[in-house]
Amino acid sequence: MGNPNPLAPTIPETVYLCFQMTFAIITPALIAGAFAERMKFSAMLWFIGLWAIFVYAPIAHWVWGPDGFLNSTNDAARVKVLDFAGGTVVHVNSGVAGLMCALMLGRRKDTGPAHNVVLTFIGASLLWVGWFGFNAGSAVTAGMQAGMAMTVTQIATAVAALTWMFVEWAHRRKPTVVGICSGAVAGLVAITPASGFVGPVGSMLIGIAAGVLCYAAVTWLKALFGYDDALDCFGVHAIGGASGAILTGVFAIKEYGGTPGLIEGNAHQVINQLIGVAIVASYDAIVSLIILAIIKRSLGLRVKADVEIEGLDIMLHGEAVQ
Amino acid sequence: MGNPNPLAPTIPETVYLCFQMTFAIITPALIAGAFAERMKFSAMLWFIGLWAIFVYAPIAHWVWGPDGFLNSTNDAARVKVLDFAGGTVVHVNSGVAGLMCALMLGRRKDTGPAHNVVLTFIGASLLWVGWFGFNAGSAVTAGMQAGMAMTVTQIATAVAALTWMFVEWAHRRKPTVVGICSGAVAGLVAITPASGFVGPVGSMLIGIAAGVLCYAAVTWLKALFGYDDALDCFGVHAIGGASGAILTGVFAIKEYGGTPGLIEGNAHQVINQLIGVAIVASYDAIVSLIILAIIKRSLGLRVKADVEIEGLDIMLHGEAVQ
Amino acid sequence: MGNPNPLAPTIPETVYLCFQMTFAIITPALIAGAFAERMKFSAMLWFIGLWAIFVYAPIAHWVWGPDGFLNSTNDAARVKVLDFAGGTVVHVNSGVAGLMCALMLGRRKDTGPAHNVVLTFIGASLLWVGWFGFNAGSAVTAGMQAGMAMTVTQIATAVAALTWMFVEWAHRRKPTVVGICSGAVAGLVAITPASGFVGPVGSMLIGIAAGVLCYAAVTWLKALFGYDDALDCFGVHAIGGASGAILTGVFAIKEYGGTPGLIEGNAHQVINQLIGVAIVASYDAIVSLIILAIIKRSLGLRVKADVEIEGLDIMLHGEAVQ
Repeated sequence: MGNPNPLAPTIPETVYLCFQMTFAIITPALIAGAFAERMKFSAMLWFIGLWAIFVYAPIAHWVWGPDGFLNSTNDAARVKVLDFAGGTVVHVNSGVAGLMCALMLGRRKDTGPAHNVVLTFIGASLLWVGWFGFNAGSAVTAGMQAGMAMTVTQIATAVAALTWMFVEWAHRRKPTVVGICSGAVAGLVAITPASGFVGPVGSMLIGIAAGVLCYAAVTWLKALFGYDDALDCFGVHAIGGASGAILTGVFAIKEYGGTPGLIEGNAHQVINQLIGVAIVASYDAIVSLIILAIIKRSLGLRVKADVEIEGLDIMLHGEAVQ
Repeated sequence: MGNPNPLAPTIPETVYLCFQMTFAIITPALIAGAFAERMKFSAMLWFIGLWAIFVYAPIAHWVWGPDGFLNSTNDAARVKVLDFAGGTVVHVNSGVAGLMCALMLGRRKDTGPAHNVVLTFIGASLLWVGWFGFNAGSAVTAGMQAGMAMTVTQIATAVAALTWMFVEWAHRRKPTVVGICSGAVAGLVAITPASGFVGPVGSMLIGIAAGVLCYAAVTWLKALFGYDDALDCFGVHAIGGASGAILTGVFAIKEYGGTPGLIEGNAHQVINQLIGVAIVASYDAIVSLIILAIIKRSLGLRVKADVEIEGLDIMLHGEAVQ
Repeated sequence: MGNPNPLAPTIPETVYLCFQMTFAIITPALIAGAFAERMKFSAMLWFIGLWAIFVYAPIAHWVWGPDGFLNSTNDAARVKVLDFAGGTVVHVNSGVAGLMCALMLGRRKDTGPAHNVVLTFIGASLLWVGWFGFNAGSAVTAGMQAGMAMTVTQIATAVAALTWMFVEWAHRRKPTVVGICSGAVAGLVAITPASGFVGPVGSMLIGIAAGVLCYAAVTWLKALFGYDDALDCFGVHAIGGASGAILTGVFAIKEYGGTPGLIEGNAHQVINQLIGVAIVASYDAIVSLIILAIIKRSLGLRVKADVEIEGLDIMLHGEAVQ
């Protein structure tokens, strides 16, 4: 009824199933940030169902499955990619798919901020706490590695939140709560692949990188290319996830996770991380576009202009959200 | 200071006490959904105190106490009812008491929706997460049964949320967030008695049943009888709890919880479940009515018309809720 | 990478570090309730950084460090103070620092309530749940002491919430949700130092004391002295923390935490608790005032009048909070 699976020998298989499902559930939810306020509800249901099967599931198996060709614990893997808790599987994956959605759907008619400050703060706070479950939990047993994963998650997140705050303060003269929340999420994303492999100092540097790079992505890069990524799914998750994945190859410490990184002389790991990010991003982009194109031709992706102007809450769901 | 009690030999008695208190606390809180916006605050305090002692406590002992005459683990029990985490003790119990409150109090002057979409969503999300504590926790030890209880809780809830959404979409042309939340709660309720006894397939079917039956109860049944159950305490908790309790007798698997159900040839278990639901509902209805009648004669149950029109928040508590 | 530290031999050092950081993080956050709506953001960052280093860290080491001169488990300690989870370290400490901030900053221009009823309720609910982590967690291992700490935390909090509600009802004719939340926090604060040392009866009496004394502090004491403690940091945390710390000396039971209190004939423990509270409060008051004075002379502490009238959210952060 639930004897341990070789993938997670320390817990009942049912528990591992539930744990893995949390990753599979959160990933499409992240994508929703990119297509908010203009995708049809029916199109979203089809997209999420198909994407979970044809994009998420294969990538999760490549990186984490015992026979995955990107799995660092698979001796026969061609490219041993370190991804402790989903830098590529969850974040590069959702971020790139989000960008594809934003490009296929086009810009919203009203591209104002799609958030409420208080709810953003509550959401980011719950996310920060819940994230310890993803990162420390990926050790799949309570012990030294889980403890260090929790610690570096806290450090990177706090540092990234402060980094974003100071960068925004310098750049726009005002530090914001939404900026601190965005920085915290950027830090959580970037430390995710690294969390079982790096130590406190590495996590601090990853936090700084995440704060700076994600801030640049959501202000400069988004403006440069003009895509309308409503909740910065690409800027935070793809850029943060890719930065974290690459820096995992830099700061990995053999003592903590079994694999040395560039700072311990293993430059090769950085190459592996780059290849891993490139493979995940490419496969994801291509298959996401195919799924979106199929839905566009059949159901249609975008709501009509009057629905968008009046608001999807009212028009599609009959609900007024304060 | 807290040596294990024979009821829960794996944990300190203080921990079991706190765990049991969470059930005792949540049950009257559920009833509050039925009498919202019209019961006197003082009447509510008396009702909850008396109901917890004279209704909740005896029923919890009948179903879960070592000598309980409905307890399936009591060899001397006359009717062995399966109720892993409170389908009868918590949900049939609160739902029927809620109906009695709605009937005794009468309809609100303004029977509009008593919810805010965002807060409903936040509340349902916290509830979903917290519910794993009730259901998996009822195994009272970390292991196979707890793992399966968690898994089937997730499956039934997700299926019930989708079921309600599709039924509402078909019936009223619009899927709603509040509907998805209601469906999720219906699924959580229905899987509660079954969670330690059924497997994934059973939980899926329980989820479908919960979505359909509870939707029917809150739209059709409530309109038919005209009671004003503001937050659908009866429609979701009594109907969901009774459906789940009966279907536990259908889908129980001997390997998972020790008792076979109808699908393994034990039709008798369905009869036991029906008797259990009937006894809990009848005792609850009668004693709740007696308590309500006593309060009505002494303190009065309902606020004055002007208090209700102006709002209890302002008039009774001096607080404006946005 | 995280072998257990002698301070917490049952868990990896990284886990103990994260656990201790939660206390170090929450303490300055509590102070923020006192200086809300008028302190400069830059001044707040400097204050929190300096205060954590020069006030929080030494006090935490005096009370909890193996060589701390107030640590009851240090045989060489001059004053053996019982503080299981932060009555002095967190609550007297934050409360007194909050009062110093309120005095140095002066009154707000608009001293209306600085809260939203719904958010207060959500916040208090999350706090109540999270607090079990502080109090039961301070046993640093799952077992009898953690179980009793959890139980008495629940009892004291529930009793204090009801006590505040009834006192407010009698005094102002209306029970309020914000009052119930304030009472709950007062109970959580007061049971914090006592949680590993007292039993259910002691916790009930501590809850009653917390409800009455903190209610008196925030209504009568605050009005008498005229300081503007926006969210009652002093009234709830300092008064609740000091009451709880002193009553720990009264109700401690040798069987539960190793040290007898006044009710078991050890009047000396009450003296120790009083000395502990006095030392923490005095050091805290003096060093907090020095830090505040330095910031006032250099950066300035308070925003300009127009910023305060228009609102710090808009003027300092460019964010409109609904």
